[in-house]
Amino acid sequence: MLTHSQVRHMQERATRMLSQSGIVLTAREQEQIEVVDFNLNELERTGLELVVYINNDRYCAKELVMTPRQTCAQHRHPPLSETNPGKQETFRCRWGIVWLYVEGEPNPSIQARVPRGSESHYTVFHEIELHPGDQYTIPPNTWHWFQSGDEGAIVSEFSSPSYDEFDQFIDPRISRFTTVAE
Amino acid sequence: MLTHSQVRHMQERATRMLSQSGIVLTAREQEQIEVVDFNLNELERTGLELVVYINNDRYCAKELVMTPRQTCAQHRHPPLSETNPGKQETFRCRWGIVWLYVEGEPNPSIQARVPRGSESHYTVFHEIELHPGDQYTIPPNTWHWFQSGDEGAIVSEFSSPSYDEFDQFIDPRISRFTTVAE
Repeated sequence: MLTHSQVRHMQERATRMLSQSGIVLTAREQEQIEVVDFNLNELERTGLELVVYINNDRYCAKELVMTPRQTCAQHRHPPLSETNPGKQETFRCRWGIVWLYVEGEPNPSIQARVPRGSESHYTVFHEIELHPGDQYTIPPNTWHWFQSGDEGAIVSEFSSPSYDEFDQFIDPRISRFTTVAE
Repeated sequence: MLTHSQVRHMQERATRMLSQSGIVLTAREQEQIEVVDFNLNELERTGLELVVYINNDRYCAKELVMTPRQTCAQHRHPPLSETNPGKQETFRCRWGIVWLYVEGEPNPSIQARVPRGSESHYTVFHEIELHPGDQYTIPPNTWHWFQSGDEGAIVSEFSSPSYDEFDQFIDPRISRFTTVAE
């Protein structure tokens, strides 16, 4: 659970990071930045800030903002129908460094720090390091998680339509939708 | 037709504009910027520079770079099959000003200048002005054209998959694919 003040503070921080990297949002978009704490109450460690530019029945585009060493918890986008094998997404690093972990040969050691106390909910360790201009496409139904470097990061996500409510997380404590205290 | 030198010059100019607005390309991407002259031999007046980040069978994302007052000629994306009503695209202005013209109530006067000698090939004049942070979604199979302001412009395009070979132009002289002299 987050307070309104925490949400507002993080929205302002994300807006500043975007602005410094040359990305302009309208005032309305700034107020609608989605602050996700995955219901874990450790936003600085596990969380994500999202600007959804467009999400229609054909495609989706977002900006992901991550404060320093913030982690997006491990999840996958499962098949949704016979014709929809699940969300496919392309991450393009715009600013900072991101370490992305997907299924595949695990790296002997990784550069991200698995959030303390949540170790058992992180199971894929094939590391992809993204610098500005680098991008990587994650196939549907593939477990993945990611963490920004010491300066934070901005990542553009281009994808098939998002149906966040169907995302699967390993950690049973997680809810994709953040509760904000009244 | 363009010469290799014209293409290289325009790729460098587009790279500079992107860089100044904070958008990083890899060296390989810089060399692959698509310079489109629509076969009209007036690149500065009618043309477009394109960075294709991703174009797969589910979604597409590009960066459009326009030099000052450069025009993308009127065209539409027709239906391609029973399940594909044609390309749908969302333009998000990142830098500069863009005037976009689509079907609908024509404006009494417009801010763009229709390319001289091509007046009969421009038939839609419902004007949408986009500043940084503004965006607009163009439905499939809708005639549209656009022109940048006096400083040029950078526009992100998020869309359903691109099949440029099926684009329809009003101007019969136009070819979507640029010939580069050997």
